[in-house]
Amino acid sequence: MPSRRRDRRKFLKNTALAAMAMSAGVVDSAHAQAGDSHAPYSKERHLYGRRSRFETATRYIREPGIPLPNYVMAGLTPIQDSIGIITPSGLHFLFTHGGHAPPDIDPRQHRLMIHGMVERPLVLSLDEIRRLPSVSRIHVLECGGNSGPLHYRQALRAKLPFTIQSVHGDVSCSEWTGVPLSLLLKEAGLKKGASWVLAEGADGNRHTMSIPIEKAMEDVLIVYGQNGEALRPEQGYPLRFLVPGWEGVINVKWLRRIKLSDQPFMTKNESTSYLNMGVDGKARWFQFEKAPKALITFPSDAHRLPGRGFYQISGLAWSGGGTVRRVEVSTDGGRTWKDAQLQDPVLRIAFTRFTLPWNWQGEEAVLQARCTDDRGIAQPSLAQLEQFWGVASNYWKTGNFSNFNAIQPWKVNRDGSIVNAMYNF
Amino acid sequence: MPSRRRDRRKFLKNTALAAMAMSAGVVDSAHAQAGDSHAPYSKERHLYGRRSRFETATRYIREPGIPLPNYVMAGLTPIQDSIGIITPSGLHFLFTHGGHAPPDIDPRQHRLMIHGMVERPLVLSLDEIRRLPSVSRIHVLECGGNSGPLHYRQALRAKLPFTIQSVHGDVSCSEWTGVPLSLLLKEAGLKKGASWVLAEGADGNRHTMSIPIEKAMEDVLIVYGQNGEALRPEQGYPLRFLVPGWEGVINVKWLRRIKLSDQPFMTKNESTSYLNMGVDGKARWFQFEKAPKALITFPSDAHRLPGRGFYQISGLAWSGGGTVRRVEVSTDGGRTWKDAQLQDPVLRIAFTRFTLPWNWQGEEAVLQARCTDDRGIAQPSLAQLEQFWGVASNYWKTGNFSNFNAIQPWKVNRDGSIVNAMYNF
Repeated sequence: MPSRRRDRRKFLKNTALAAMAMSAGVVDSAHAQAGDSHAPYSKERHLYGRRSRFETATRYIREPGIPLPNYVMAGLTPIQDSIGIITPSGLHFLFTHGGHAPPDIDPRQHRLMIHGMVERPLVLSLDEIRRLPSVSRIHVLECGGNSGPLHYRQALRAKLPFTIQSVHGDVSCSEWTGVPLSLLLKEAGLKKGASWVLAEGADGNRHTMSIPIEKAMEDVLIVYGQNGEALRPEQGYPLRFLVPGWEGVINVKWLRRIKLSDQPFMTKNESTSYLNMGVDGKARWFQFEKAPKALITFPSDAHRLPGRGFYQISGLAWSGGGTVRRVEVSTDGGRTWKDAQLQDPVLRIAFTRFTLPWNWQGEEAVLQARCTDDRGIAQPSLAQLEQFWGVASNYWKTGNFSNFNAIQPWKVNRDGSIVNAMYNF
Repeated sequence: MPSRRRDRRKFLKNTALAAMAMSAGVVDSAHAQAGDSHAPYSKERHLYGRRSRFETATRYIREPGIPLPNYVMAGLTPIQDSIGIITPSGLHFLFTHGGHAPPDIDPRQHRLMIHGMVERPLVLSLDEIRRLPSVSRIHVLECGGNSGPLHYRQALRAKLPFTIQSVHGDVSCSEWTGVPLSLLLKEAGLKKGASWVLAEGADGNRHTMSIPIEKAMEDVLIVYGQNGEALRPEQGYPLRFLVPGWEGVINVKWLRRIKLSDQPFMTKNESTSYLNMGVDGKARWFQFEKAPKALITFPSDAHRLPGRGFYQISGLAWSGGGTVRRVEVSTDGGRTWKDAQLQDPVLRIAFTRFTLPWNWQGEEAVLQARCTDDRGIAQPSLAQLEQFWGVASNYWKTGNFSNFNAIQPWKVNRDGSIVNAMYNF
């Protein structure tokens, strides 16, 4: 049944199916081949559903020492497969210090203590916390080192590939539910001069970080829910700190203690790592807000274009300091830029999905996206970032790894393969 | 460390912890008792994460014949545990005709055929569909019979309890990703007069339903994604029809065929069931839009208030015809109503979380919520609904079961127990 009006077929005209003759039999036999099962229900199987056995996307696990230090383990989100703005909880990135598995905490035994410079120290059970006024918010959570040069350097040293997942997969977005920290601090009563807040986890490492009181009172949540159910163990079950827009390391998991003080606590992770080093060798401390970033997730180095024709360029943008206002996309190596469409809802400190239609005619192309947030802060190119930090070239060789948000270029080759064009190794 | 300013403790003043004296040792020993494990990582365990072994919420499974007809199986969402607006995919409700388990479809073999009154019949693979322009939208999905009198009647006959989960759990909300049906129909080219769209599933039952072309072109999606990953098998993997705001039965799962016609197809489910029967014995056909509804999820009959004091009343509201504009809550059996707070984001045809602070002083109380959508359509009381349908009383005894949205009252007893006060059995 060939068409006489093929020109109207805007998206499908270059695909192989255009001239196929169709009948119900074609579909019937396709399903017969697929071996559909129509077995009776298994009650147990459907109490808590699982994904199809044909779905195989997983986290990319970095085991201790390969290539990270042996006290760090990481699992990176398959961001190349992402759709929409919610990350499935089973695929949310994880990054853990101390070399231990997530603790296996019985929520009935878990307590949160709030003490230090407060009028009324508190110890709260989960039941007590869940009884308090709660809020749910969709927020992005990103590791300080996500996208960073350290990923490239470590991968090169360990002779591992660097891919969109292994370089950019330390970021996820969930609907989080919990109690505003400000509410708990008002219940406890801040003493005069209380200006820093320590959060401590119940993991083997007793992970600790401190944040200024201004952020604590603004939007920090004590979270027990993720995507409509309890937090997953890898994200801090049964309780975590959620510090919207600030580096993952501060979002203390398995939260058991909050202490108020009149000065920062200078914990290991805030005084000896998670720094930004200048060329003068001096470190910048407590610089935790994540900068605006846009990342093209399709197409990227995980994909190969099967042929010329229509593609929808799609990606994720976010800013730790506000709401995404604009995403521009270039398909010609940065010569020209077009405004991408932002998909509703566009929420504060959350993934925003952007798309741009693209017709690929088989040419070499470099795809890039850049984000501007509602404060007008725009994502820099690598050259701009190097200029800012005073590093002439090969930024990836420096010790800096926190808060790297240079525009990520993907180079499309004539054969449809795609490579990371961030650095020329 | 007793407080001299206990009056400031707004939420916690009635809980047992108020006068507790705290030290780090208390928390330490609580965790020692909990037997935290700090075992080395298991790579396999973290490729695709699971929930904590302490989390046990499941669907409520209605097996064939108990109490539903033996060709129907259902799994209802534990809505009493819901937090936020996203339903975890593993707990999304399911309702299946035909008595079979969800088909086990290989997506590489699956095809979608579009034929009938179109210029260019199409057969599309999943890869081809995923290459088309896609959108993601957060939408509620609700079974036609959710909350309906049939639930009560069947439970009574089968001597089963009716609970918030078994009566109201046929509703869930997800972020869905897919291709607008309007785009596919434009590709195929509608023939003059094409006015009805048939959707057919690849399940054992070959489930079929038809919708008018106006709805098809407005907002229907051909969906392959749910909450950031592939559709779950119970929700139609690898492809489903999503008809925003219309009864679940129309949202055909395991979608394999779309046919255009100049008249409705009068399939079994649209001509002999999923009807609304008037007192004159005549059926209303093709009345599929879900009416506005608000449901208090906490506290409800699944909970027991542990004592007097502060509680946050919390629930979900939605409308199949638009956006929730207002939710009012009564704690005194309908004598007075207060506006609940609507939590952002408030999205079209999606769960909207509402909350209202409540101080319970131990009295008998009846809690109710009612929803008004942005068209000004308000949720009726049971008495109003009975008046509308011309049923004097005992609405639950009638054959009507579609689109029931009477206000659900929960009665709080003096001992803190809570019962369903919809009907007096």
